[in-house]
Amino acid sequence: MVSIVAACASAAVSPDPPHTLVKTRAAASRLTMDQVLAASKPEDWRAPDPENTLYLDVPAGLVVIELAPQFAPRHTANIRTLVREHYFDGLPIVRAQDNYVVQWGDPEGKKPLGTAARTLAPEFDRELAGLAFHALPDPDTYAPETGFVDGFPAARDRSSGKAWPVHCYAMLGAGRDVAADSGGGAELYVVSGHAPRHLDRNVTLAGRVIFGMDLLSALPRGHGPMGFYESPEQRTIITRVRIAADVPAAEHVELELLRTDTATFDALVEARRNRRDDWFKLPAGRIEVCNVPLPVRVRQVELGRIDALPRQ
Amino acid sequence: MVSIVAACASAAVSPDPPHTLVKTRAAASRLTMDQVLAASKPEDWRAPDPENTLYLDVPAGLVVIELAPQFAPRHTANIRTLVREHYFDGLPIVRAQDNYVVQWGDPEGKKPLGTAARTLAPEFDRELAGLAFHALPDPDTYAPETGFVDGFPAARDRSSGKAWPVHCYAMLGAGRDVAADSGGGAELYVVSGHAPRHLDRNVTLAGRVIFGMDLLSALPRGHGPMGFYESPEQRTIITRVRIAADVPAAEHVELELLRTDTATFDALVEARRNRRDDWFKLPAGRIEVCNVPLPVRVRQVELGRIDALPRQ
Repeated sequence: MVSIVAACASAAVSPDPPHTLVKTRAAASRLTMDQVLAASKPEDWRAPDPENTLYLDVPAGLVVIELAPQFAPRHTANIRTLVREHYFDGLPIVRAQDNYVVQWGDPEGKKPLGTAARTLAPEFDRELAGLAFHALPDPDTYAPETGFVDGFPAARDRSSGKAWPVHCYAMLGAGRDVAADSGGGAELYVVSGHAPRHLDRNVTLAGRVIFGMDLLSALPRGHGPMGFYESPEQRTIITRVRIAADVPAAEHVELELLRTDTATFDALVEARRNRRDDWFKLPAGRIEVCNVPLPVRVRQVELGRIDALPRQ
Repeated sequence: MVSIVAACASAAVSPDPPHTLVKTRAAASRLTMDQVLAASKPEDWRAPDPENTLYLDVPAGLVVIELAPQFAPRHTANIRTLVREHYFDGLPIVRAQDNYVVQWGDPEGKKPLGTAARTLAPEFDRELAGLAFHALPDPDTYAPETGFVDGFPAARDRSSGKAWPVHCYAMLGAGRDVAADSGGGAELYVVSGHAPRHLDRNVTLAGRVIFGMDLLSALPRGHGPMGFYESPEQRTIITRVRIAADVPAAEHVELELLRTDTATFDALVEARRNRRDDWFKLPAGRIEVCNVPLPVRVRQVELGRIDALPRQ
């Protein structure tokens, strides 16, 4: 006997589910997450824009990041410039603080930035108007309302008319110094622990890791102050960063993300808010934004390429 | 230049802080966490009960767990029996699911349990009466109220008169099968990601990792279903588990934990609810129970033993 705790969201789900329609919210509310995903339709999924998708090569495999230009147009444009001018190639992961963040950049701060900006005006929040904000009804400790915008966990305050992405696991942020405008995307971090929501609206969030997160989260922790590695040989080198649009088709990993503005997504959230399988004795009744899974699947796997795919 | 994001709670703080008094809540509210800790008094700290403290030896070092008999008297007593009869010695960590849990136990379910029970009646919650519940004023998605009991993050429902520990990072739980009474502490898991609060009141929580958490959280992830390792050689072996009370004094790691029922703790929570250092531009104003740091320090480090101490 191996007694277990029930599985959390798996980031990778099997491709090509049968196309059974989820007919109603009432029906959906009795389904498990796996059943909701199995019943999803092709139009419930979306492919990330290759122009806003980063491929990070680390020694253990591939990490894929989706950028969030709807929240950080200046930072994501600057990051694209840095990537295209090979700024990140060969830079180290300098920090891995347990239950907090993994961070990379130029430890000496001397590498030329090319045509990119070193610093930018902050993009901590933005006008709510113009965003398709898909709200959760569930209460949140930190924000008046939470929900999703184009697949990114987010919050809004309708009284101020502002919206902002939130610091859930796997979110990508632009490190900065003390001044609000001292970051620019040359130093980046990914949330690798319990959501540090106190950072919301204090740092520019620019995207989210959508594949290969465990290649960052399982790195050995740094033991210097704030989890910085104490010697260069403890660091992991990011060998190369590319924009998916620039990567030859044969090297693409064809990811699809579950849309967050659909009835299928609502059914998935409900399936996680109130677990229906026999293991759960007391459904939670509510769900916190960072506990909502954001499923990713590999759309097409050609037989000859399976072995080359990084594990997820 | 290395731009950074501000440090999260460090689990280990420097020993022997100066004994400056935190005089008032108003004064405390302007302090940073480091200042609160530096001003703490000896009576703000407590040593865990050696009879309720587990030392887990893994190849990379020592993991220390504080048991929670106030919430799970049957399970913690059974775990102590299992430890004293060497049940866990040599068992593997069988599962490391990214952003969820690390779990260990007997993968074959064949190792004799000695005088310990295989299963126990669940201890998902208990009567609130008799507990010193130190409540947070902050709202929570999942529970009517959250707070701390003897250093453990917890929740209460005054209308039902119940209290229960909550699934924050580093909490220890007893795995079970489908039946509520199918666990007993022979299979244990530790939360290693964003708090899976939907598990609250569905599993018996029996303690918390207070030292060496990164030796579990940075383990390579399993890539089988639910993060189970796919082959035995991927597993990490727990070489030995002991109860601190049974460990020779020379091998003790003298940990002290910040009490959670003091004005100093209230000041620490406020320092984290509203960060006062220049880096923060917008204090959060609220704090979620699993984002409250629970500081641990090493009380006495004899010079000759420094090198033998596991890194934290």
